[in-house]
Amino acid sequence: MARHQKPRVVIVGAGFGGLRVAKGLRGKGFEVVVIDQHNFHTFMPLLYQVATAALEPEQVVYPVRGIFDTRAIRFLLARVESVDLAAKTLLTTRGPIDYDYLVLAAGSVTNFFGQKDIEAVAHGLKDLWEAETLRNHVLTAFERASVEPDMAKRDALLTFTIVGGGPTGVELAGALSELIYDDLAEDYPYLDFNRVKVILLEASSSLLAAFDSSLREATLRRLGQMGVDVRLNAVVATATPEVVGLKDGTLIPSHTLIWAAGVRAATLAGQLGVPQARGGRVPVLPTLQLADAPDVFVIGDMAYFEQDGQALPQVAPVAIQQGDLVAANLERLARGETLERFVYKDKGSMATIGRSAAVAQVAGLKLTGFPAWAAWLGVHLVQLIGFRNRAMVLINWGYNYILGKRGVRLITTPDSAEATGRTQVSSITGLEQRELPASGREPSLVVDAR
Amino acid sequence: MARHQKPRVVIVGAGFGGLRVAKGLRGKGFEVVVIDQHNFHTFMPLLYQVATAALEPEQVVYPVRGIFDTRAIRFLLARVESVDLAAKTLLTTRGPIDYDYLVLAAGSVTNFFGQKDIEAVAHGLKDLWEAETLRNHVLTAFERASVEPDMAKRDALLTFTIVGGGPTGVELAGALSELIYDDLAEDYPYLDFNRVKVILLEASSSLLAAFDSSLREATLRRLGQMGVDVRLNAVVATATPEVVGLKDGTLIPSHTLIWAAGVRAATLAGQLGVPQARGGRVPVLPTLQLADAPDVFVIGDMAYFEQDGQALPQVAPVAIQQGDLVAANLERLARGETLERFVYKDKGSMATIGRSAAVAQVAGLKLTGFPAWAAWLGVHLVQLIGFRNRAMVLINWGYNYILGKRGVRLITTPDSAEATGRTQVSSITGLEQRELPASGREPSLVVDAR
Repeated sequence: MARHQKPRVVIVGAGFGGLRVAKGLRGKGFEVVVIDQHNFHTFMPLLYQVATAALEPEQVVYPVRGIFDTRAIRFLLARVESVDLAAKTLLTTRGPIDYDYLVLAAGSVTNFFGQKDIEAVAHGLKDLWEAETLRNHVLTAFERASVEPDMAKRDALLTFTIVGGGPTGVELAGALSELIYDDLAEDYPYLDFNRVKVILLEASSSLLAAFDSSLREATLRRLGQMGVDVRLNAVVATATPEVVGLKDGTLIPSHTLIWAAGVRAATLAGQLGVPQARGGRVPVLPTLQLADAPDVFVIGDMAYFEQDGQALPQVAPVAIQQGDLVAANLERLARGETLERFVYKDKGSMATIGRSAAVAQVAGLKLTGFPAWAAWLGVHLVQLIGFRNRAMVLINWGYNYILGKRGVRLITTPDSAEATGRTQVSSITGLEQRELPASGREPSLVVDAR
Repeated sequence: MARHQKPRVVIVGAGFGGLRVAKGLRGKGFEVVVIDQHNFHTFMPLLYQVATAALEPEQVVYPVRGIFDTRAIRFLLARVESVDLAAKTLLTTRGPIDYDYLVLAAGSVTNFFGQKDIEAVAHGLKDLWEAETLRNHVLTAFERASVEPDMAKRDALLTFTIVGGGPTGVELAGALSELIYDDLAEDYPYLDFNRVKVILLEASSSLLAAFDSSLREATLRRLGQMGVDVRLNAVVATATPEVVGLKDGTLIPSHTLIWAAGVRAATLAGQLGVPQARGGRVPVLPTLQLADAPDVFVIGDMAYFEQDGQALPQVAPVAIQQGDLVAANLERLARGETLERFVYKDKGSMATIGRSAAVAQVAGLKLTGFPAWAAWLGVHLVQLIGFRNRAMVLINWGYNYILGKRGVRLITTPDSAEATGRTQVSSITGLEQRELPASGREPSLVVDAR
């Protein structure tokens, strides 16, 4: 029997999965409470555009209270610390809250596979702050390089290493290349951009493993044309703030290491007292329920679900389709009916590489170049929440793709002047005597290294 | 004699004044270096709209390297720590840099008049982080109040106290009132908005002292209609994180104290070894030079300049006009000509109160209501740097003023769930038994206090 007037469904996580459950439960006789550690939904697929100064952080998130009728669906800003499955109670940072039904949709975090030295220096790309922090870091590296007299240090500052050749790594490598060679080259006319490097490391023998081989090859070709140094069969073994070390012994002097090599289930998955599968994911029944607690559903990146002998990928469409099924199954459960089993319908994949360049495989079609890119733009714009966000993103994309300008080249750390550090020379003007410009004219430069 | 091939002008500060000097020196035979502690210019007049969730932080700033041709004008991201006037050298966080001519345009910071307890708890509104921090704080107060069972605490959380009845205080009070009563009232349907208070404290007997009395009275009336509790002759004496104390002994339980009661010159003004006037400002000659160092100019909020026996106000138009004159005077100085004296042309003042409500006095005209508001919108939009920012701000204003929605209701602190704190009750569901909704129906509420 429900302990509340209406059965209370608590949904943990306002990501793609959690929002779908909440939406599906509207007007179905439940009391719905959504809990998230932030007061906004994050549109993860566009985070890499925040990291590369193409979009503003506020444009890829949307306040949770603005998504629903707040009279019908409650929101609690809190982090869930643990779940007491027996007592049907969540312990949150705000206090305990009990439930009749629970949906766990807390997503995933970056997986460093236990490599602490890498975790200490690498940038993830899983939330708004990581994206903004990465943008600040990249732009600060250019500011530092602009007055760095030591050529080797300058080269290391201007070497950007991305680990992971999946869609995130590929999209980030392409966008970073455009930011650097199109926009920053104009901002720093006295830096030699032939020495700037974007390196994409992939442990396997191919980029975009989930894509058709023709698309994988097109991606490799295109990234090469954009100046990205793609290295296959390259496994990262060590990292310091200034050097990335590969398993084969190669050392890459690089001040920027971006980790797009995998995710694991949110830490909450480890607090349930149930077994965990690979990547910390929680195995679920075909109905998406926990085997030990049929009033608890787990969906999205947190859940481990095999179909045709393969674990489903941790991508938004899986979370969305699972969210829809859980909303329907909750109704069935409340009415004492038999629950339906989940079947994932793969609608295809796409990844953008750059302006007018993308790869997509949808309904048996394989697209590259402009058609794939246009499809990518349309799909992402439609899925973005809120008229205002859509209009803003359209302007930024127009500004970016038509005028070729990324406007968000901002270092938004309050202490950015301190973070850049002192130069090694006794005076910034000392740079003048170091390197003459190619033209051979008398140097009058001060604050930009050449 | 210049120590550099071209005489080097170093401009400290990329605010309204500094940018005008740099612009005026283009193509005039100087080597120009702009130094700022951030890599962007901040459009200060719209910071209060960032604080009230109407605009995104990125929309009121613009990257310095995007403003100029970076081949002609150098930029150094650094904070200036001190000036050695005799050696003609600046010490910066990046290292020393020497100059032939120096323009100090580092602006101002919030003036707490030595009241440390107030400084410790009050929010300023002088830079991007203060604006974003204030927005996060206001929104977090509502999240905390939504599950706070103690009525007195809840009231204190929902009491917002602004100190200072000048343009900043008035604009902020109006915008905060609109954010709260128009937007947040929909986000928190279970909070009683009759208990939410916006209080504007002014130490003197009138708001907007610089304006005509008819406009001052119109402002007072309009703010009253918008639900702002304006208290004149109210002097703040003490502050804790939870209570604001007035000189007359009144205690206002309030978790939010916003300080718009004055500014003082940037701390750099105290590092010059020259006498300082009121508010730490640096007195300058009629030509805007330092008396002791004619190769140094000081402009804008940092400078102290009397005209008709009165100190000029610390506002953007003064900095802009002084910047223009300094650019011209630098040319004269380099050519050995006589320098011109500065005369401020007051083109009028305006302050917006809310949607379709503002006051303006321009060229002898006094405007209120929609005409003043339209003028305010136009003037600010034109002055904003960059096509992209203008388009974005227009959309946000349209969204805000036409659809009546502020989209940026985001709490962008990574630990926002922790910052809200635990409730005093043992369980969040404990709230249910506390207060019945007015309808008398069985309570099934969880996460919103009533």
